[in-house]
Parts: sequence; structure tokens; C-alpha cells
Amino acid sequence: MHNMRQMEVDKVVCSSRLSRVAVCGGTHGNELSGVYLVRELLKKEKKGTEEGEEEGEKLVSVKIVLSNPWATQQCRRYVNTDLNRCFTHATLNGPMTDMAPYELIRSRELNAMLGPKGSPQAMDLVCDLHNTTANMGLCLIAYSDSDWICLHIFRHLQRQMPDIPMRYIHFDIAKEESYSLDSVGKHGFAMEIGPQPHGVVRSNIYTAMKFGVQHMLDWVRSFNSGTIFDGGFVEVFTMVKHIDYPRDSESHNIAAAIHPQLQDRDFCLLHPEDPMFQMFSGETVRYKGKEPLYPFFINECAYYEKSIALSLARKRHIAIPAIRVMTDEEQQHADQQELASEEEEEEEEEE
Amino acid sequence: MHNMRQMEVDKVVCSSRLSRVAVCGGTHGNELSGVYLVRELLKKEKKGTEEGEEEGEKLVSVKIVLSNPWATQQCRRYVNTDLNRCFTHATLNGPMTDMAPYELIRSRELNAMLGPKGSPQAMDLVCDLHNTTANMGLCLIAYSDSDWICLHIFRHLQRQMPDIPMRYIHFDIAKEESYSLDSVGKHGFAMEIGPQPHGVVRSNIYTAMKFGVQHMLDWVRSFNSGTIFDGGFVEVFTMVKHIDYPRDSESHNIAAAIHPQLQDRDFCLLHPEDPMFQMFSGETVRYKGKEPLYPFFINECAYYEKSIALSLARKRHIAIPAIRVMTDEEQQHADQQELASEEEEEEEEEE
Repeated sequence: MHNMRQMEVDKVVCSSRLSRVAVCGGTHGNELSGVYLVRELLKKEKKGTEEGEEEGEKLVSVKIVLSNPWATQQCRRYVNTDLNRCFTHATLNGPMTDMAPYELIRSRELNAMLGPKGSPQAMDLVCDLHNTTANMGLCLIAYSDSDWICLHIFRHLQRQMPDIPMRYIHFDIAKEESYSLDSVGKHGFAMEIGPQPHGVVRSNIYTAMKFGVQHMLDWVRSFNSGTIFDGGFVEVFTMVKHIDYPRDSESHNIAAAIHPQLQDRDFCLLHPEDPMFQMFSGETVRYKGKEPLYPFFINECAYYEKSIALSLARKRHIAIPAIRVMTDEEQQHADQQELASEEEEEEEEEE
Repeated sequence: MHNMRQMEVDKVVCSSRLSRVAVCGGTHGNELSGVYLVRELLKKEKKGTEEGEEEGEKLVSVKIVLSNPWATQQCRRYVNTDLNRCFTHATLNGPMTDMAPYELIRSRELNAMLGPKGSPQAMDLVCDLHNTTANMGLCLIAYSDSDWICLHIFRHLQRQMPDIPMRYIHFDIAKEESYSLDSVGKHGFAMEIGPQPHGVVRSNIYTAMKFGVQHMLDWVRSFNSGTIFDGGFVEVFTMVKHIDYPRDSESHNIAAAIHPQLQDRDFCLLHPEDPMFQMFSGETVRYKGKEPLYPFFINECAYYEKSIALSLARKRHIAIPAIRVMTDEEQQHADQQELASEEEEEEEEEE
């Protein structure tokens, strides 16, 4: 077993150049680190354009986006509906009326700007900036546990920012069903940092996000310039299930808070019979699962309305191969092969 | 000096019975400790009524109020305007139209229910429950530094809850100009507890508030039953001024966050030249005042829109006298004197 995994790690995988990267903030208008970081980057971009191109721009083109300007202006998560649930294939391609919620209209604008999702024109990488009230440190959240680009970026951030607790969270959802803005890119992830109250910006969290984005772009430039990144092992937390608050049977209001012994202990193993909630009347409610699991998004503000008090994950170690960018020749060859396979598919469909 | 103060402390002041007390929560609909505590107390009250009166009810009648039900339902601070700024004499008695903001209408309902403000019918004591995102522990906030009832309750809470950092904050504003719900009572204060993100309930903060209210009501019952409470000295923080965030001159958006060395250090003395803000571009902004002062409400979420990054206070030690409730005879005598002085005033006005 170990030898096989060692081979995976030693293998060098070639991946397409990441020419176009999007950094998005304010997808949720009250998650302020991303809002103020994007505003700061846009200011720098404007100044840079006035002063002429910088060296790094030859290696990667970066698009800075304030995703939900209306919600940001009102300092609310969203105006009509959660923008970051609007990017499924079905929602992006469903019927559209004049009475559509603002975020449905905005999701199509963003899909046109950064996608279209699933097309060759889509951004090579979308990094969407988020905050959480949970004590989660810096997390990359992605739909894949085999996207070597995302996993290598994660490993790079871990090494560059050793003082920040950092995890990779994997939501095991099919590409078709993926719903968040970052799913519009060929590669993508949410960069989620906490704890920070929504509607507040804390300097330490803002700074962690700023460095996270800088190191991510540094890695992309280094990758594009031909660096070979060694393979290795990465710890991945795969989401297993959500748990709701105990609720009042009549009013459906929550009837308990996260137990003080669980609060702020994201990614600390939760064992069967550990305290999970404290009822407002005083009693303790315990974790009744049979398997010890890792809790995260503990007491996230925005998830009260989604009936999620916390989520639970299983931890695994994943072997990732070494990686380097394709040479121009390899890229041409790959493009031709893709074109050929598409034509084949079309022929099959016609038959 | 000290002898004179010692005399103040030894003197026993008589104060009217506190027959009717109001405990209000949800004045800001997203400050959830108060919202859930009030719901829990209402549930207990309903159950108590079904099961017959409890012993303590003979000593004090407690009215439990969810102040802003509409904002609470939406989990927002307010719907149209900040309810807790609507209780000035001018606002309560100004003109009223059909198009009035919801909170203006609600403030009059609450004034009718708990006041009218300044009248003999007003509640004897109003305790209004609040949360802050600032690291302030438990604070009583009041308009007076000579309301012995409020100061004795504060001292009682300090003694009963030694593990909770506790302060008394004094907003030096004339009764006429006092704007908050607690100003409707003959005595009143806000019980402000943090840090807790708005829209979130943390078990430790909820529990601190629950015990704070219990100990407050215990003190009132003990006072009403004739206990003499010793005088002594109390530390009081009097608000001196507010400080706004550095802002972008064009957009008026904030251009900095609270400096990491100041964040969470509420009530730790801020000296001239101490770091106060960190600009989003990186530079440090220092405190330029000439006098060391005590910061509080550092990075409170709801104050971004009020242009308050933090407030500064001066600390003083106040001598409070011993206190006991008036006997029935003393109360009758006091009532007669008050009546007489009112008649005198009316005569003077007629002249």
C-alpha cells in the first residue's frame, strides 16, 4: 500500500497553465475581510494601471471582483437569496423572469464574467473570499479531493503561514450539483477565515486573508514559470453531515446553544457522548453518533437559517503527485486530444 | 477629603420600594442572548401562572418584554431605525404620522407599557439586555453616577459573579436627552455583555446574562424586604468621547481596522502614541490624545454606521452610601412632600 502511494507522490503530473485567476470578495456582503481586501486590491490595480504594468502580470492575469455589490452596500449577507447557492447548472440555466431575485440576476452576470461554468472560456482558477464566526482558522473549501492545483496551493499556504491553523475541507458533491461561485472556474475554492463576526473586520483576520491571497498568487506565478512542486501527503476533511440545533416543537425556534465545551473547538475530534448543546433551560445534550468525527462551522451565524449548528467531517490523508505546468508543446497536444474526444462525443450523440 | 467620603459611605439613604421591574430583551433584534433569555423567562412565567404564584412574586412584580419583535423575527438590529435611540422626551412627544418608522410606533407602545417616562406610573426599574461584539465582559450602562440603586445592584453582581469581568459605564447625558429604553424607568440600566457576534448566541454569554438577571432580581427582593446594604466605593467609567475610523476621503468607506494591539483590550488604559488602527494598506495609526483614557466598545459591529470605532472613558472611584428601603410611614411622608412640592410648582407656574 505504502509503496503504491509513494509512486503516486513521485509521479510528476502536468497541468494546464493558470493564465487567468479571479479573486472574489463580498459574495456575502457582511463578510468584511473579503470586501475590504477586494476594495484595496482594486485601488492598487487602478494605481498600477496608471503607473504601467508590473512584472508579475506577465505570468498571470488577475481579475478582482466584488461579487455582491448591493448586499455589500447594505452590509447584509444577501438581498433576496444566498448568492453563493446560485451557481448550480440548473439555476444558471433555468428560466428567468423580470421578477427574479437580485442574486439570480447577479449570478448570471458573474457566470458570464468568470465562466461560463464548464466551458473552455472559464477562469482557470477562482478564489472566493469568505469569513465565518466559527473558530476555523484559514480553510480552503473545495468540491474535489483530487484537484492537484487546489491541494498544492493549500500545501504552499500551510508552509508559508505556519502560525495560522489551516485545513482543507472537501464537500463531496458532483460538479453538476456544485453551487458556489468558485465552482465557475476550471479550478476553484473558497478561502474561509474565522473567527470574525459578520459586519466586523478584525485586523488579524484581514491580514491572514491578504497574505493567503498573496501566497496563492505567488504559487500560481511560480507554477506558470515552470517550477516543479514535489508530491506529498495532505490532510483532508471530508464533510459527512450537518447537525441542527434542538428546537422548540411549537415555535420551531432554537432551544439550545452550542455547549461551552464544544464552542470554538472546530477540528477537535468529537466523541460519542461528548457534550454538544446546552439547552436554554440548562440541560446538556450529548453527541449521539457512533463514530468520532471532526466538527467544523461550529455556531456559524449564517447557518442558523440553514438549520446547521455544526458540520461533521472525516479526516483522511491524501497522496498528491508532484506537479508542473505543461510545456507549450504538451499543451497543444492536450488541446488537440480534447478537441478530438469532443468530436468523438458529438459523433456518438449524433448516432 | 477621605473623612468626608467615609461619612457619605456610612450614611444610610432611604429609597422607594422597587415594586415593579421590567426585564427587556430584543431591543436590538440580532443581540441574541437577550432574545433567548426573554423567551425562556416568558415560558417560565406562563408555566408559573399555570402552577400558581411563586414566593418571590410577593416581593417584586417582574414584567418580561420582547422589545422589538419585528426586528427579532428578521434577526436584524432594527427594521427602520434604531429603537434604542427613540426614547428622548422630544421623540416620544413629537408629531406622529401614518408613515412613521416602525420603531417610532413601537417606542410609544413601550413608553405606554413601561412609562410614561418621567411619570409616577413608570416602572421602578428597567433592565434592558444587550450584546456587543466588543470584549467588554458584563457592563451596566446608565446615565447617572449617583443612582444608588443602580450602583448597589452593580456591586451586588460584582460580588456574586467574581469570574466575570464587570464594569459600570456612565453616559453623562441629561435625563431629558437620554435616549434608550432603560431611561423610561424611574431607575434603569442596560446590561451589555460581550464578546458575542450579533446573530449568534454563545452559551457562556447567555449564562452570564441569565445569572446577571437572577442576581439583580435577588437584590431587588432583598432590598424590598428591608435589608440594609453597606456603603462603599465603586469604580465608574465615564464616557468622554467617541473615535471614528480613518476613512477614504472619496468613498467615505473605512480605510483601516482596529489595530491588533488594541483589539479585544477594552478597559485597558490607552496611552498617547499607542497603536490604534491598522490601515488596510498596512500603516499604523496612533492615538493622538494627550490624556491616557480607557477604551471600550472597541470594534462594535453596530457602531460602524454610527461612525464609532471605539469610545474612551475616564475612570473614577465613587463613594456610595448605605441604602435601605423606606418604611411605609417614610414612603407616605415622602409622597406627601412630593405632592406638596408639585402643587407649589404649579402655583409658581400660575403666577
